[in-house]
Amino acid sequence: MASSTSPPLPNANSPDSLVLSSDPLHPANHICALCRNFYDFGWVTGTGGGVSIKHGDNVYIAPSGVQKELMQPTDMFVKDYESGEYLRRPAAHKPSACTPLFMAAFTTRSAGCCIHTHSQWAVLVTLICESTNSKDVFSISQIEQIKGISRGGHGSTSTSNSNEILEGGRKAGNLGFFDTLKIPIIENTAHEEDLRESLEGAIREWPETTAVLVRRHGVYVWGKDVAQAKTQCESLDYLFRLAVEMHRLGVGWVKE
Amino acid sequence: MASSTSPPLPNANSPDSLVLSSDPLHPANHICALCRNFYDFGWVTGTGGGVSIKHGDNVYIAPSGVQKELMQPTDMFVKDYESGEYLRRPAAHKPSACTPLFMAAFTTRSAGCCIHTHSQWAVLVTLICESTNSKDVFSISQIEQIKGISRGGHGSTSTSNSNEILEGGRKAGNLGFFDTLKIPIIENTAHEEDLRESLEGAIREWPETTAVLVRRHGVYVWGKDVAQAKTQCESLDYLFRLAVEMHRLGVGWVKE
Amino acid sequence: MASSTSPPLPNANSPDSLVLSSDPLHPANHICALCRNFYDFGWVTGTGGGVSIKHGDNVYIAPSGVQKELMQPTDMFVKDYESGEYLRRPAAHKPSACTPLFMAAFTTRSAGCCIHTHSQWAVLVTLICESTNSKDVFSISQIEQIKGISRGGHGSTSTSNSNEILEGGRKAGNLGFFDTLKIPIIENTAHEEDLRESLEGAIREWPETTAVLVRRHGVYVWGKDVAQAKTQCESLDYLFRLAVEMHRLGVGWVKE
Amino acid sequence: MASSTSPPLPNANSPDSLVLSSDPLHPANHICALCRNFYDFGWVTGTGGGVSIKHGDNVYIAPSGVQKELMQPTDMFVKDYESGEYLRRPAAHKPSACTPLFMAAFTTRSAGCCIHTHSQWAVLVTLICESTNSKDVFSISQIEQIKGISRGGHGSTSTSNSNEILEGGRKAGNLGFFDTLKIPIIENTAHEEDLRESLEGAIREWPETTAVLVRRHGVYVWGKDVAQAKTQCESLDYLFRLAVEMHRLGVGWVKE
Repeated sequence: MASSTSPPLPNANSPDSLVLSSDPLHPANHICALCRNFYDFGWVTGTGGGVSIKHGDNVYIAPSGVQKELMQPTDMFVKDYESGEYLRRPAAHKPSACTPLFMAAFTTRSAGCCIHTHSQWAVLVTLICESTNSKDVFSISQIEQIKGISRGGHGSTSTSNSNEILEGGRKAGNLGFFDTLKIPIIENTAHEEDLRESLEGAIREWPETTAVLVRRHGVYVWGKDVAQAKTQCESLDYLFRLAVEMHRLGVGWVKE
Repeated sequence: MASSTSPPLPNANSPDSLVLSSDPLHPANHICALCRNFYDFGWVTGTGGGVSIKHGDNVYIAPSGVQKELMQPTDMFVKDYESGEYLRRPAAHKPSACTPLFMAAFTTRSAGCCIHTHSQWAVLVTLICESTNSKDVFSISQIEQIKGISRGGHGSTSTSNSNEILEGGRKAGNLGFFDTLKIPIIENTAHEEDLRESLEGAIREWPETTAVLVRRHGVYVWGKDVAQAKTQCESLDYLFRLAVEMHRLGVGWVKE
Repeated sequence: MASSTSPPLPNANSPDSLVLSSDPLHPANHICALCRNFYDFGWVTGTGGGVSIKHGDNVYIAPSGVQKELMQPTDMFVKDYESGEYLRRPAAHKPSACTPLFMAAFTTRSAGCCIHTHSQWAVLVTLICESTNSKDVFSISQIEQIKGISRGGHGSTSTSNSNEILEGGRKAGNLGFFDTLKIPIIENTAHEEDLRESLEGAIREWPETTAVLVRRHGVYVWGKDVAQAKTQCESLDYLFRLAVEMHRLGVGWVKE
Repeated sequence: MASSTSPPLPNANSPDSLVLSSDPLHPANHICALCRNFYDFGWVTGTGGGVSIKHGDNVYIAPSGVQKELMQPTDMFVKDYESGEYLRRPAAHKPSACTPLFMAAFTTRSAGCCIHTHSQWAVLVTLICESTNSKDVFSISQIEQIKGISRGGHGSTSTSNSNEILEGGRKAGNLGFFDTLKIPIIENTAHEEDLRESLEGAIREWPETTAVLVRRHGVYVWGKDVAQAKTQCESLDYLFRLAVEMHRLGVGWVKE
């Protein structure tokens, strides 16, 4: 609802030069477009959730506490990836509390984009798991949409199922129909920044995963670029919702 | 579907000068945009629900019985806040029956914006509560989205959790993950205006609340400005819907 | 997806003059806009459902078997209200099978607009009722949204609750919160045109109703004009959906 | 989100001449528009699903692994229908894994358009059926929307119910309200291309069907042209969703 006027491109040394561009795929523009999309999905309701994109040596992050569907490029925070210093800090905003978690995905998984949602389907699967023997991992098999999830390496968005082995013993490519998708679940904390340790622990313990569920909170999903992060986030949300419907029908998530 | 033509700005002494502006954030424009959004959510279906914005010394209110998603700035009623007199009364419309309830939020809670929805999720949680020991209050804890709700003071839309104590003993800032959100429920009446007494009573009895549920009717939510009212309304609707889903799964709302 | 070019306004004696206008509220334009809206609601999926508007001496009806969200003004059929003769019959289309049913609403209830939807919520309530003692009527009370439904006379879209008595013993105005809304249910037939007799019978038997549910099919809703028909259709669909959710929760529709 | 600039129409001998047109109903444009629509329905989430249109001697197919709602005409693959050779293969993309399945619909059923969705409702009905005596076919009767489905011949999108008999013994026209709709279900395979054999088998075994469900995967739906394929896909998805709701309510799908 805020009016959007694009000022002329500023001096290249100004922090604003980091966020103003006519290219819709510039991260400052792209984050805004993604958030409008995610708002319609119910993923970033009431200022929750967020997106971060690594772009060359810089990391772009949406601020905390803003209406995600109304964001403008000038709302973005920009960090230097190596030093962690802020190159741009809008005075009117607070940095996203998700920042350390986005950085964890970038540094430990060579991600290019990380998405955090408060999807109700993500929250509900963590609640269903909470009262089972499989409290700390969401598992599902033999649903075609699983093939939309990569094995955490540099898999593509296609459904190729290569046998190549990458570092850490991970296979390349995406999951196959007869594979079992496993997404770790960590417990929520009072403050979002305090999730960093357990998120990094889950990433180490589950080298194939491209996401971590947070109990009663939502999910973090990453990918090598925006397309992979977004499409994996969509596929996971589809699977979380389907899992809730399957649970209501009394159908098990992992087919024997 | 009605065509929208903005006439030139009228004489400053004309009541129309109160509602015609090229600024999308002018309350007359803002209410229209909010209602289009709320219609898509199913909150203002079939002419139900409404929005009011306090703007300086004036209060802007959407009329009764109009299709909310088709409203134009010239449909707005405008009241003088102090005297309560109408500065603008469109002849073709009736004042909103919610008016006394909006005014209650403005006067007792220093609100800047009040939203009334007929959300089905709000109605359903009041029905679930109706047959329990907790008939008159909706309580939920340990869901991250709770952090989107302020403590009824001048909390911001961020997730800060200050320890500052305000008048009336209320803490500043927003609720924390381990807090329990409590929203009072009042019984519906034959006529909406008659809710005023019980709504004011609920506000006095629950000084931290930013909303009041009305059994079998919907919810009133307020905030210090539009952003806070809207984002809190979104967070509450998220929580109402999640609560219905949790109830179906047999998961309690307040974690022991 | 079909391209839309408005040819210049034709000769006043041409049938095309009946459907071409720059006024968005002209029935030929209005029906198209309404159908785009209804398609998003899931009411006119897969060519099902329809809309008809009485405009002066003419009746405008959307054709059968077209994608409702893609309709153009030139797709409309136009009938003379008194004689029943077609003033305009697009050669590429078939008249709507709903036509006799729309005409029944216009002639027996002085309606100005009639809407037919295949809403799943309407179908589901008829299925729930099918196996109860209340097979032939859907009843619900003490839900605020009931106040959006008129008493079948020339009630307005407001929530006024007049005590005026109209012909046939009907009270004027809209239903009150403590009233019980009753919508008759008729059985479906092999051909839509064959519903006319039972629809007219239901209208005679239920003089207050503004709608008739058709088992395993959908609903017909009318009003004195488009605004009343549309808002009542929205309120009824809200109540049908809420009723299904209440049924799942074990909450009765009529409060004792 | 990618910007869309239409280059000038290329040399008629260039493969690009096959996909660039100002006509919104040109298959390369039409597929993009359909996919934006299907993305909103949740049918082509996370790069799943697809569409193919037969246009004269050519077959247009959306590529594999792309975000369907962002597709551009230049993303399309084009095959010669008779020889099966590619006339246009975008270097950046992989051919759709659905290609052999689309070709099966075109060759065995004289289809003009084939749609593949990962609709959750399709997946859920195959799961409900999996544990019943009716494992390999989804059946439903006496729901009005059934009349939106043709008998697999060259039925129209209207609800005509002709008694004409076509080759293979199939009746012309659409199903009637008292008919039973039956959609065969085949088991999913590790690779989508391997479904061809069982899909062709199902088409032979069920000459009236216009669709085949794939367990835990989705559905393939075809029609003589885009309008029929799309409207039948919508009607089927409506019926799949309704069937899941009916199952939850304990209402049988085939009325005795």
